[in-house]
Amino acid sequence: MKVLLIGVGGVGEAIASISKDRDWLEKMVLADYNLKRAEEVQKKLGDENKFPIEQVDASNKEEIVTLAKKHKCDLIMNGCDPSFNESIFDAAYEAGCNYMDMAMTLSKPHPEEPYSKSYIKLGDYQFERAKQWEDKGITAIVGSGVEPGMADVFARYGADYLFDELEEIGIKDGNNFVAEGYSVPFGFSIWTTIEECLNPPVIWERDKGWYTTEPFSEPEIFELPEGIGPVELVNVEHEEVLLVPRYIDKGLKRVTFKFGLGNDFITMLKNLRELGLHRKDKVKVGDVYVSPRDVVAATAPNPAYLGPRLTGKTCAGTWIKGKKDGKERQVYLYQVADNQECMKTFGSQAVVAQTAFPPVIMMELLAEGIWSGKGVFGPEAFDAVPFMERMEEYKFPYGMTEMESEYKSMLEEVAATKE
Amino acid sequence: MKVLLIGVGGVGEAIASISKDRDWLEKMVLADYNLKRAEEVQKKLGDENKFPIEQVDASNKEEIVTLAKKHKCDLIMNGCDPSFNESIFDAAYEAGCNYMDMAMTLSKPHPEEPYSKSYIKLGDYQFERAKQWEDKGITAIVGSGVEPGMADVFARYGADYLFDELEEIGIKDGNNFVAEGYSVPFGFSIWTTIEECLNPPVIWERDKGWYTTEPFSEPEIFELPEGIGPVELVNVEHEEVLLVPRYIDKGLKRVTFKFGLGNDFITMLKNLRELGLHRKDKVKVGDVYVSPRDVVAATAPNPAYLGPRLTGKTCAGTWIKGKKDGKERQVYLYQVADNQECMKTFGSQAVVAQTAFPPVIMMELLAEGIWSGKGVFGPEAFDAVPFMERMEEYKFPYGMTEMESEYKSMLEEVAATKE
Repeated sequence: MKVLLIGVGGVGEAIASISKDRDWLEKMVLADYNLKRAEEVQKKLGDENKFPIEQVDASNKEEIVTLAKKHKCDLIMNGCDPSFNESIFDAAYEAGCNYMDMAMTLSKPHPEEPYSKSYIKLGDYQFERAKQWEDKGITAIVGSGVEPGMADVFARYGADYLFDELEEIGIKDGNNFVAEGYSVPFGFSIWTTIEECLNPPVIWERDKGWYTTEPFSEPEIFELPEGIGPVELVNVEHEEVLLVPRYIDKGLKRVTFKFGLGNDFITMLKNLRELGLHRKDKVKVGDVYVSPRDVVAATAPNPAYLGPRLTGKTCAGTWIKGKKDGKERQVYLYQVADNQECMKTFGSQAVVAQTAFPPVIMMELLAEGIWSGKGVFGPEAFDAVPFMERMEEYKFPYGMTEMESEYKSMLEEVAATKE
Repeated sequence: MKVLLIGVGGVGEAIASISKDRDWLEKMVLADYNLKRAEEVQKKLGDENKFPIEQVDASNKEEIVTLAKKHKCDLIMNGCDPSFNESIFDAAYEAGCNYMDMAMTLSKPHPEEPYSKSYIKLGDYQFERAKQWEDKGITAIVGSGVEPGMADVFARYGADYLFDELEEIGIKDGNNFVAEGYSVPFGFSIWTTIEECLNPPVIWERDKGWYTTEPFSEPEIFELPEGIGPVELVNVEHEEVLLVPRYIDKGLKRVTFKFGLGNDFITMLKNLRELGLHRKDKVKVGDVYVSPRDVVAATAPNPAYLGPRLTGKTCAGTWIKGKKDGKERQVYLYQVADNQECMKTFGSQAVVAQTAFPPVIMMELLAEGIWSGKGVFGPEAFDAVPFMERMEEYKFPYGMTEMESEYKSMLEEVAATKE
């Protein structure tokens, strides 16, 4: 497979590095606005033929189409901030390439009731074009990272193999990171973190459809596995809530996404909002016009350089509640990554490495024809097993917690009887 | 007296308004970078002859000199942010005018040990030129607002009339403001608040001279009068610490300035610092260069518009510890302003009104020849009594708390004996 990677930031680099020795990868073009950055990554990879570099403006559809044709690419992998999604997605369509991204096109809040009603939702732009993609015979997998991405695969696995009937699916993500010298570190793209945390969180319910709430709503304490321990999680706008109900039914009543931001981080974000520093529009400052959020992204400690100072583990996973064999059951399927191990193994911090391996597995499944389909899809549209089987080989094994429930008690009774 | 007021912001407007009907005021030129703003204030004042307007760039010394000469001004009143102090101060010297400001020229932190050693101190630029001012026979009163300003007058009063021997003088400022809908409101100039709160606080001690500490150091609970109650105060860089030891002795051992910022506000400031948003230098954002602090000042809720939403009182004052008649004594001299009353009486919020009345009294004392001297002075260089006598007439009466001490017990015993 020949891949055009648009955006060679931290996640882009990790995608290239994890794909490097895979048989199915014939070529991966490293295209970035900053050619020096692409060159730096190319040098690290040490293979100029397999990883040619190109300069590209990701907001310019024609430039992307030209590159895709020049290199005869089969797939465009979008490694940019989601603000560039539309142009890259449209370029893939025009070039007749398959497409993958790790965050869907952006939402717009409801003009009158932003904290109760959905309006333009994450991925609407993409799913509205699904028929055209299908007609053209090409495939887009949107939300192919860890969350969304792996978390959606887990939802599919639970629905297919662990439950007879579903009640609720909640993606739950948290960590016990400590960044020496920082009290409110951004662990991931500053722009995207502000976007997803301050946008009205979206919830899906069978009876109400998609609706929104106030940011940071419904706090709950959730016990994360492998020594991370209890973390306070709050609702955050995220793609899984838009994807899961499109593909999974079995009576499912509710889908949420919750993230463990920590009170200090939430306070910082609320303050940014109160001070107007979260704004994306340009404001006049002296003689120039500038987006306050771009200023924050330019001045705040760069998450890419925090890696070596970060200790602790991060957990991404999918909690599922429903019934199995007539008994109430709850499970949490997860992947835990330790930052210092990721730094050693992949040269990337945990969240970056964890975001990069799922799209590589998905490209592999597409390349080998194991996942296939024409149109626009979330990862839960495909069989979960071949993805999950490959996780250990990719050094990101999954785990599962059977939580306290009637079903767990029954399992324990059965086990005791057998002894 | 003919006054050239440079900067007609909130405080500038209040100075003009409070001075308006005073006999000694012949003319006050309202000069601002924003001529529309000057015009707006002129209209409110309703006297175009007494308050002519001019456009001025406060960083351009020559423009200021030209205006001072054109209007034959006796005194230049600086109503700008302290970043413009040098050009306005130098213009007054060149034009041969007296000069007043409400915050002294800025400090620069020590390049190697910012949190322990002083380097360029507040007002250094001005006091280094005192001899030239003296030789030219003109007067500068620096730090003539409420703090610095009134607080320095209180220090002088305490030293002259309330103590035989001094130990410590601490300026202490706090409030119980609540701003509906805001959790971290800036109650005063955003730029200046960030400057003074994040700069290393300065302390003076007889044995060590001036030295600095970490921001927000030495928290203490202090009971503020007139119903405000206990407030946590922390060290903040402020002019009084540089002024008081120049003029007051009587064995004085220590001078500090402490402000009740509140934990939420301190957290917000610390976060701004961690995110690099306090920075004054210009950073590259996309294709433009901009100072992050200027962005904060442009986007955060404008303190000028918070006035009507603010309830509560603010207290500015001077705590003095020493000996009187051989007994240990502690007093707190203060001025409390209620925001809603100030809005009603002066059309300005409490901190703005409280900052504006002291320079008007000082101009009056200069105009009447009651305060006089050639050179550069802090307000404690002059007799405190005529200032304090005028406070009630200006609707900002002072109060004094005799705090628990040997001296207070003695006073109470004497009173009991007399009954």
